Amino acid sequence: MLFWRSFTHWLGGMGVLVLLLAILPFSGGGNHMVIMKAESPGPQVSKLVPRVRETAIVLYGIYTVLTVIMIITYLISGMNFFDAVCIAFGTAGTGGFCVRNDGMASYNNVSIVLAIFWMLVFGVNFNIYYLILKRKWKDALRSEELRAYLSIFLTAAVIMTIVTFISIYSKEIGGTKGFFLSLRDSAFTAASIQTTTGFSTADFSHWPIVCRWIILLLMVFGASAGSTGGGVKVARIVLLLKEAKSELHYLIHPNAVKPIKFEGKVVEKTVLRSLNSYVVIYLVILILSVFLVSLDPASKDFETAYSAVLATYNNIGPGLSIVSPLLNYGSFNVLTKLVLIFDMIAGRLELLPMLALFNPTIWKRKFM
Amino acid sequence: MLFWRSFTHWLGGMGVLVLLLAILPFSGGGNHMVIMKAESPGPQVSKLVPRVRETAIVLYGIYTVLTVIMIITYLISGMNFFDAVCIAFGTAGTGGFCVRNDGMASYNNVSIVLAIFWMLVFGVNFNIYYLILKRKWKDALRSEELRAYLSIFLTAAVIMTIVTFISIYSKEIGGTKGFFLSLRDSAFTAASIQTTTGFSTADFSHWPIVCRWIILLLMVFGASAGSTGGGVKVARIVLLLKEAKSELHYLIHPNAVKPIKFEGKVVEKTVLRSLNSYVVIYLVILILSVFLVSLDPASKDFETAYSAVLATYNNIGPGLSIVSPLLNYGSFNVLTKLVLIFDMIAGRLELLPMLALFNPTIWKRKFM
Repeated sequence: MLFWRSFTHWLGGMGVLVLLLAILPFSGGGNHMVIMKAESPGPQVSKLVPRVRETAIVLYGIYTVLTVIMIITYLISGMNFFDAVCIAFGTAGTGGFCVRNDGMASYNNVSIVLAIFWMLVFGVNFNIYYLILKRKWKDALRSEELRAYLSIFLTAAVIMTIVTFISIYSKEIGGTKGFFLSLRDSAFTAASIQTTTGFSTADFSHWPIVCRWIILLLMVFGASAGSTGGGVKVARIVLLLKEAKSELHYLIHPNAVKPIKFEGKVVEKTVLRSLNSYVVIYLVILILSVFLVSLDPASKDFETAYSAVLATYNNIGPGLSIVSPLLNYGSFNVLTKLVLIFDMIAGRLELLPMLALFNPTIWKRKFM
Repeated sequence: MLFWRSFTHWLGGMGVLVLLLAILPFSGGGNHMVIMKAESPGPQVSKLVPRVRETAIVLYGIYTVLTVIMIITYLISGMNFFDAVCIAFGTAGTGGFCVRNDGMASYNNVSIVLAIFWMLVFGVNFNIYYLILKRKWKDALRSEELRAYLSIFLTAAVIMTIVTFISIYSKEIGGTKGFFLSLRDSAFTAASIQTTTGFSTADFSHWPIVCRWIILLLMVFGASAGSTGGGVKVARIVLLLKEAKSELHYLIHPNAVKPIKFEGKVVEKTVLRSLNSYVVIYLVILILSVFLVSLDPASKDFETAYSAVLATYNNIGPGLSIVSPLLNYGSFNVLTKLVLIFDMIAGRLELLPMLALFNPTIWKRKFM
């Protein structure tokens, strides 16, 4: 059972549809690109190799090879075979179910540091690995999304280390050991939340307010586009900031027209337009979900309501307050659970194609 | 002192700069439009009459006449002259300081119902009153922003009435009187928060979570563009939803190009572009402010941090938790107060022109 749960993480990771494309014979025309768009995370589906089927095989190959290497490193660090495979599947698919009741805290420090590394690896855009395979090292390292992704992680981890050390670890444990543990738990939490994996080594729901705010922001930012992680995705965040910066530039220099560039390419206007709509729809679903969840008597405080929504919507797993890592969603009523189920699905599939699916005309056109 | 405080509300209401334009002789060219854009709230400065100075005089006339009528109605309802003038100034400027320690609750029900009405009146786009003056009743009543503004108010007031009646008023007071009081306080709170006035008749910080969520949303939505209220403004909310809807339509019918219309006119692309940047900059300032405020030891819970930021950023006044209507911002440290001061200024001036002012090139160009 535990193995099956972890294996579904792994399958789900790359998206069941991409897997189907890789195994089933190539049939039909442009519909595959539509499916790819709905299933693979991120604002732009860049075709790595011209045909969709090949793309899927390449991505899947990278995914499998990385998973195998990960299992080997976990074994070397001292995990038993069953745990290593299950944790590896949970890491690769950014699923986040553990096989032990006390989460990841039951493993040794080497395993935990390895898990931080591998969670981050599976939160990177897989295009980067393809570029590395093609020995385009410079292009890979110059990626704006990769840099933003790592900067967000480092900033969050550093601030949380300082805050948790001062307020908790220096008092409860103290000295160098306390500092190492606050660094370990902060880096682990930052990596786990940002990549939307959801493993935990510490009950961050009792950390100071600043840390909880950072955790909520990491939930929303999420991992890179084209990775197995969820959330809004770093690429979208970078593009939104670039858009705002370009508008400020335009206000000051109304005659200087400067197109917005991302990863060295000019961003098309249609991409920006659907990005802006994505933000609006994301916020609308968020606002309505928090409203419905806060009607539940189990939402004893505000933090429960919006952390439950953010944790499911961005496919993390644990939230804060009564949905903290040590507790679960069992105390909510049926309406709340339905809302959260919708949020999980909406967050996993990209929003716009999913909403388009609800429109009857698209069904008539494609399947009749 | 109390009178002066209320009088500054009234002056501030229409924007000190618009007042200056109306009194001082008309000098120079397009710079006035730049100032109007920075000071008068809303996404589009529609010139009511061709010249800026005339526009300012018309707006100012409407503002003064409405204030005088309001003072008379307050007097009839039983307020003394001093209170009536001060409360009227606080209502007109959506300022929200009262002359009594227990807020608006010390007046009779007629005064309170009148205050609900007048707060809503000063949250309406002043263009509407200009249209009514010109006897263009149909155009005035057809206004999409007016309809959205009233719908938001009614929805919030109805939901809050039901929730507060069931959870508080039916138990503490009961019967018809309890229902009337829950209706009165809910409608008053919705009007006061949405128009960003900030008067209070009840301590809404102890209302159920759903109500507090609605209050936070009303803070963000704010009043109409071209009114004396703050917040994001209803016109922007409507435009953002239209943008998202149009993108969904485009996804399903990629060949049908449909321009976005607002108040019967096609919305220019530059307006949409700065709207989208506004949202991003609004969120960036919000996120950083909550981060800085949550570092303050006085932020004992999450609600304090973000309701303090939202209440100042959107120019409301009272927030939730330790900044609730009955308490104040005194317990925060200097850094927090500086952040909140910045938020109040940023929220009052429109964001984009204000940020442009920080750029040195604009100073060189305009003033040297």
